[in-house]
Parts: sequence; C-alpha cells; structure tokens
Amino acid sequence: MAKPWATFGVDLHLEPTGPGIRRGLTDALREAVRTGRLAPGTRLPSSRTLAADQGVARNTVADAYADLVAEGWLTARQGSGTRVAMGIAPARVSPTGVSPARATPTGAGAARAAPTGAGPARVSPAPAGRRAGTGAPPTGTSPAPPPPPRPREPAHPTHNLIPGTPDLGSFPRTEWLKAARRALATAPYQALDYGDPRGRIELRTALAGYLSRARGVRADPDRILVCAGFSHGLRLLGAVLRARGARTVAVESYGLDVHWNLLAAAGLRTAPLPFDDRGTDPGELTGQGAVLLTPGHQFPMGGTLHRDRRAAVVDWARRTGGLVVEDDYDGEFRYDRQPVGALQGLDPDHVVYAGTASKSLAPGLRLGWLVLPPDLMEPVLAAKGHADTCGSLDQLTLAEFLTSGAYDRHVRAARLRYRRRRDALVAELARRAPRVHATGIAAGLHVVLRLPAGTEPAVLRAAAWQRLAVHALDRYQHPQAAVERRDALVVGYGTPPDHAWSGALEALCAVLPE
Amino acid sequence: MAKPWATFGVDLHLEPTGPGIRRGLTDALREAVRTGRLAPGTRLPSSRTLAADQGVARNTVADAYADLVAEGWLTARQGSGTRVAMGIAPARVSPTGVSPARATPTGAGAARAAPTGAGPARVSPAPAGRRAGTGAPPTGTSPAPPPPPRPREPAHPTHNLIPGTPDLGSFPRTEWLKAARRALATAPYQALDYGDPRGRIELRTALAGYLSRARGVRADPDRILVCAGFSHGLRLLGAVLRARGARTVAVESYGLDVHWNLLAAAGLRTAPLPFDDRGTDPGELTGQGAVLLTPGHQFPMGGTLHRDRRAAVVDWARRTGGLVVEDDYDGEFRYDRQPVGALQGLDPDHVVYAGTASKSLAPGLRLGWLVLPPDLMEPVLAAKGHADTCGSLDQLTLAEFLTSGAYDRHVRAARLRYRRRRDALVAELARRAPRVHATGIAAGLHVVLRLPAGTEPAVLRAAAWQRLAVHALDRYQHPQAAVERRDALVVGYGTPPDHAWSGALEALCAVLPE
Repeated sequence: MAKPWATFGVDLHLEPTGPGIRRGLTDALREAVRTGRLAPGTRLPSSRTLAADQGVARNTVADAYADLVAEGWLTARQGSGTRVAMGIAPARVSPTGVSPARATPTGAGAARAAPTGAGPARVSPAPAGRRAGTGAPPTGTSPAPPPPPRPREPAHPTHNLIPGTPDLGSFPRTEWLKAARRALATAPYQALDYGDPRGRIELRTALAGYLSRARGVRADPDRILVCAGFSHGLRLLGAVLRARGARTVAVESYGLDVHWNLLAAAGLRTAPLPFDDRGTDPGELTGQGAVLLTPGHQFPMGGTLHRDRRAAVVDWARRTGGLVVEDDYDGEFRYDRQPVGALQGLDPDHVVYAGTASKSLAPGLRLGWLVLPPDLMEPVLAAKGHADTCGSLDQLTLAEFLTSGAYDRHVRAARLRYRRRRDALVAELARRAPRVHATGIAAGLHVVLRLPAGTEPAVLRAAAWQRLAVHALDRYQHPQAAVERRDALVVGYGTPPDHAWSGALEALCAVLPE
Repeated sequence: MAKPWATFGVDLHLEPTGPGIRRGLTDALREAVRTGRLAPGTRLPSSRTLAADQGVARNTVADAYADLVAEGWLTARQGSGTRVAMGIAPARVSPTGVSPARATPTGAGAARAAPTGAGPARVSPAPAGRRAGTGAPPTGTSPAPPPPPRPREPAHPTHNLIPGTPDLGSFPRTEWLKAARRALATAPYQALDYGDPRGRIELRTALAGYLSRARGVRADPDRILVCAGFSHGLRLLGAVLRARGARTVAVESYGLDVHWNLLAAAGLRTAPLPFDDRGTDPGELTGQGAVLLTPGHQFPMGGTLHRDRRAAVVDWARRTGGLVVEDDYDGEFRYDRQPVGALQGLDPDHVVYAGTASKSLAPGLRLGWLVLPPDLMEPVLAAKGHADTCGSLDQLTLAEFLTSGAYDRHVRAARLRYRRRRDALVAELARRAPRVHATGIAAGLHVVLRLPAGTEPAVLRAAAWQRLAVHALDRYQHPQAAVERRDALVVGYGTPPDHAWSGALEALCAVLPE
C-alpha cells in the first residue's frame, strides 16, 4: 500500500504525465479545467488531500494550485478553498449544460459575480474527441461571468388543469420523512441488499392489509408485485399476454393513449368496447385474451361500471379463461359514499388488481402494485427480470406510512381538499356557465365538463390564450371507438397546488360559454 | 354530497346488504373478518368514523361492534379501540401469509397472547372464489392464538463472503436521511411529478460533476440516463444493440452470468475474448457490434486492462463503429494509487460509461447511471419507455448527497474500511495459508485467491460445513471461454458487516489448505 488514499476531502481524478512532478500535476489540472471536465465553480481537494492521493509533497500541490490561480484558471479564497474559476469556456461541450460563455480573468473577487449574456468563447475550441495539450489561459476582459449552472425545469403553463396528477404541493413531506426515519431506524441491514424481485415483504404485507381493509381486494403478500407505477405493471402484463398468444386486448372507448401504446409496443392490438350510459358494455367480449377496465371510476368519463356489467365481466373471464386488468387508479377518492369495492374481490383468480401511489401521494415516487392471480406471478416476474426493481428505501417508507396510519390520514385530508374543489367547481359552473354540465360520480381528481355543441373550439382557443392547460375529451377517445364525438373538457381539478387552485378555477370559468 | 367521508380515522370498505341497517352492517363486518379480508389484529375505525363513512347513526355502528365482540370476532379494549380478534382462521387463504390457525374465542384479555403452533381450522372453509354468508363464530377452546404475522427474511449463512455486495451495515443512514431532508425541503413541488425519463436533472447534473472530477468521465447531464442499477442499463443497451442488427456481444472470459443472461434474453450471443496476464485481449475483436468490459478492475480477476489494450479497444470501436460498454462497478475503491481513469474519457462517442450506487452505497437503492454517446440517448430512452423510471425522492437525495460532499466522505471512509480488510486478509493468508495467493490489484470489494492445484473441492466442502458462503472462480468463467480451469475462490471481503468480518475471515482461514 505505497500511496494510500487520504480518508478526508473529495476525490479528483488526475493523470499527470510528462517530466517533473509539479509540471505534470499543473498540466493535468489545467487540462481538466480547460476541457471542461472540471466545471466552473467546482471545489478542488485541499492541497493536503490531493498530495496524499497523488503521493506527492503537499508543497508540490500548493505550488501547482498557485500557478493556476496566477494563470486565471483557478480562484483561491480564504475559507472557501480553491475552486475552478467561473466563466471558463470549455474547449468542447460543457459538462454542466451551460452554453459556452465569455472567458474571463478571475481574481478572487470576480467569482460568482452578476449574471450576463453569453458572448463568443475566447478560448479556442479543441478538436472534438481528443484533448489538446495546454491551452491558452482565459485572459478576456469582458464583464461579469455567467452564474453557476442551475437545473432546468420545463416551462409550465400559468394554470394547469391537465388531469392525471394530484396536488403535489400537498405531498406530506414531513410525515413522509418521519416514516423514512422510522423505516431506516428499524430496517435490518439486509433490507439494503438486492431484494425480492416482487418487492420488499414489509411493503407487500402492508399493502395486503390496506387493500383488503379499504378496497375489498383479496390480497396475499405472496401475490403482490411492487412495480414502478401502473404503466410499468401494464407493460409487464402486456408482455405476458403476448407470450401466451394473445393478439388483442379489449379496452374501454375512453382511456389513456399511453396505455394503448404500451400494449401496442408489446404486440397487442387494442379493441374498444361499446360505451353507453351504464358505462362500458362487456357484451362484445368474446375471444379476446384480456380486458383493461377502470370499473370503480371510468377514466375519464367518471361513471362506475354497472353492477350487472361487473358480474358479466367476471363471468366472461371464467367462461373463456380471459384476464381482467382492473386499473384502480383513484379508488381512494370518492366523496359522496363508500366507493364500490374492487372488482378483483369478485374473482381474484381472473382479475389483476392494479393500484398506484401516483394519485394518492405523488407520481414521482414511481410506486404501484399488482395483485396477481396465482398462475401469473411467475411469468410476470420473468418479464420483469431481477434488474428493474424499485428502491428499497421508498418501499420501506411506504410500508411504514401505511402501517402507522399516516396513509389513511393523508388520504382523508386529501379527500376533503379535492371534494371542496369539486364542490366549488360545480357551484361556479351553476352560477357562471349554466349550460356546462359536470358529469360522472363525485369522485377522483378530475371531471368531464359537457359543453354546448359547437363551443369546444372557441373554449380551447380561449384557454390557450389564457395559458390555461386543459384537455378536450376527444384526446381520451380510442381511435376505433364507436362513440359519438362530444364537445367536452376533461378538467383535472386535483392538479394545481392549493395556492393556484382559485386562479385556475377563475381562468376556467372565464373561458367557458356563459 | 349526501354522506361525505369523515376526515379522521382509517378507511374500511364494507358493502352492507340485506334488510335492516344494523343487521346489514353486522353481517358485512362479520363476513370481512370471517373470510380473512380483515386480518387478525387489524384496528377498525372508531364508531364515529365508520358511522360518518357509512352514513348511519353512531349507535348503529356501536351496536354492530358490540354484537361481534360478543360473538368473539372482534375485541374491544379501552384505549386500543376495536380490533379483529387474534387467531381467527380465515375461510380461505389468509391475506397475511400466516397458515390457518386454530380459531379462538377472544375476550379482551386473549388478544396478542403467546405464540402457539397451528391447529386445524375450526371455521369451515368457504368455496374458493366467492364469499359465503354469515359463518359460525370462532368458538374453539384451544390455547393462545398465534402472534401477528411478521415479514419473512430469507435464511442467511453464518458467514457470507459472496462478492457483489458492499458492507450494508455501514450504509450511512443518518447522512442519507439528512440529505433526504434537505432535498425534500428545497425541491419544487414539480419534482414529485412524472419526470424526465432520463432522470431528475438535479441528479444528472450532480453526477456529471462527480464523474468528471473523480473518474475522468466526459459527462454532460444531457447524456446521462439514470437507471435502476447496471443490470437495468445493460438490458436497455442489449435491446438497442439487437434492434440495430447486432447478433453478438464480445465479453470477457470472466464475468457475471446474470449479465450474459440479460444479453441472451435480448437475443444476443455472448462471445468471450481471450484472457492472459495483461487482462482481456481485444485482438480478436472484429465484426461484433459491441464489447462489454470491466477495464478499471476486471471482475472478478482483479487486474486493470493494459494501457495498450485500452487504446486497441477504442481503436476497434472507431474503426468499426462498434460500441464499448464500460462497467465501472467499483471505480471508487482503489487502495494503492489513483484508479485508472474511465476508458470513456478516451472516446465518449464510442464508449458507454456505466456506474452504480450498488457498490458505493447499497444495491437496495436501485440507482445506476449510463453516460451515453450522443446518438444512443434516443434509442435507449425508447427501449426504456417512460414507465419504469426511478423514484424522484431517492434521485433528489443522491443528488444532494453528491453535491454536499457526503458521498466523497462516505466513499473515503469505506475505502479505508475495505483496505484494512484486504490488508488483514493478505496478512492472515501469509501467516496461515502461505500456499494461497491473493491476485489482482489492491482495489474493490473482492479478491481472487489462487489455491494449490487440486485443493478446491475440499475447500468448498469445508466451507459448506462451516456455513461459510464463498464462490469458486469457475462460477464466473464464461462457458465458452478458452481459459485454463484454475483452483481458486472469489472472496467478497466487502460483504460482511463490520461485526461479522473477523468471524468470516477466521472461518475462511480455517477452510484453506495450510
């Protein structure tokens, strides 16, 4: 162990070459800065750390740093250490995503100065794909350098009523962290290892209890597969169905194109079932291998599948050996009565129950779950592979969140919030747009608004003008669906954070026909 | 909104039927307990909550609860509320994974009593697939009911020296939670939404900075894809290579069968390259579309790819348009000198750099990253789909962990710990098993031990006898590899937690030939 690493400081990869230790180190550092490998603002290891790591004398590193400060590549300031100077134009593409900016001489005082527009790079670009030797130091005399790079966020509309996302501003951050702390405090160290590809047993046990209690699901931890949200689960089911010889999956006339596309990518055709006032009509189910349904709260139309039709779907599955995939995306949110129990409870051997934390907590968690018929676990696991499991820590945290009762408390608070929003929306419609009708049951995070015939295009134009993001219903209509086109909007009243809700409601009312 | 949900308490799904409100509620509750949908020990909502949820008078619920306590299905105790009695044998499969146990009458005092073996169920099983009406109450008189179900853990060997896992007992739980708190405190609410399928920009930015600084990778956040560990990344690359017409991927003579199997599942043959004292010989690279390498630290043999061969690999890629996949699984852990820089730094347009948190932190995080040539991002994203992204919170936490310097501190502490283990192992070998030789560079979390010819079978038998988990080298040898079979072990000295390390070392020395 000739030159052990120091156990303090940060790591810095350097490959000094050429004659002379100081010269080699200086050249390697300069090249790392010049080519952009070390981004502007990066803090370098202390001379003590780098000396230990490189196996050289501390003074050698201090001298190399001093040379590069003098040349303008680095800055040194009492208390904040040695950093790469701001405003260095990288020789090639910048590793931090900022566009090449004007190079500047950087004394200590010039670092982190006010932002400015980008100018032409003064440092001559090196040929792509190889590193040049030492380059010219940055010696321009232009004004202040640009600020350090910031993570980019996509542009957001002023008002967002796109359905599919809960109020992320109300994510229970404090409670979630508490659950994470308790989960990490009690988890055995093996919980951090490669785990059961079905998901952590703690989470599957907690889900089995919750889904049985709250949704009437027949759940056993051994039949639960934790997945990265419903889309991931559907992709796996699609692969299994296709491998079993299915060619077509029956779907509803209304739904999400991402789901149809996922099935198509698995080689499955989607065939829409008829739709009427009692919801999706399963009468045409025949030889399809599977049907994808939202029986608790049709997305986006908002009804519940009629009792007789629930029975007919299960009957079809038993008769033909077909599979029912129940997408229970927002089963937690019914406002006027207890929600209808899961269809899966009628026949757990023919129905896959699919749930998600994306609506009740946040899509960013990427946590969903399938409750599978016994014969499906093995092929679904094979399709999933051991590779793309969800992170243990989030799984343990959600398990703790469920068993501690924090999930129920959060869902009940959210239910009240969304119910108030829905009530406010319905009341405002009655007052300001009496020709617009909210349809569907009092549930979920979205509502379909029927518009007077012929008014939809004007409403959409006005919404775009107001920077109000809202979708027309026909975006959710299956291309082959034999349903009448209707003038209607799908309004995701759950999407805005609380502070933005009243503004979004006002913007919506302003674009609706009086 | 006739019967709004209460905003307190827990959710309980019930579907009362039949004449009479109290009778219907009692029947529905009894059935939920009897069929096992409500597991023994489950706490029921307060009568106030359930009354509000069901839209009935509170006394009705209280009466129903009292009936079921009298029948033995429920227990009521001051301060702990109403619960499902312990020891109820579910009519069908139990939703909590415990085997059916003897049913018991349960006064308040009988709940949560001492564990006992399971007896035959006294409650007659209902036909599978449908719920029967009211069943017989539990009236057995057997001893104490079984304890509440516990999550199951797989059995572990007494000593574990299987390579591939870091010391999970040293996972920096406190520092990780601190980073999670800071990340959640500062993240915009949009960070909890469906996100960029490449991964959170905060993490990609942090990784670009870290990989450039510490591993010499040419990294740009726009070229980084966050994935669920290396296997997930390799599965995506395999799919892309196959779609581009590749038939064969060159691999090393030694490696992991899970990787070969992942490529095979993508329809790709793996062809091993020759291996000699200078490592993998790329001289036979010709028309293969890609090569998978561990150039920094060959797994498991432990050498670094010779400088001339690094150049030859890159040269092959440029000449033929082939792709190099660099698996840098443990690049953080070199003990005697700075690690060799990433091969990717030589040609970021032909080399995919793949890194992971599985060795530096924990596999349970399921976080890895690919740094992709520009033309590969789009097809890899298409193969990945938007569905199976990693959780935002872990990504934000790792970004904070990296930028705060906690990652460097943790890696440096871990490096010291593993280096000491390796030194102790080498010293003990010299003292107690001088005919056994540790090979490879001083790096990583594992070492190959060359055994005297012919001794391997006896060593493995002795290890099994000691309940010492350790692998022979030939498990890591590609079936088509043209290499001599050697008597050797692959020892994962990083695997045991600190408290178990000296015992594992002792057990290892005890089975080695003197």
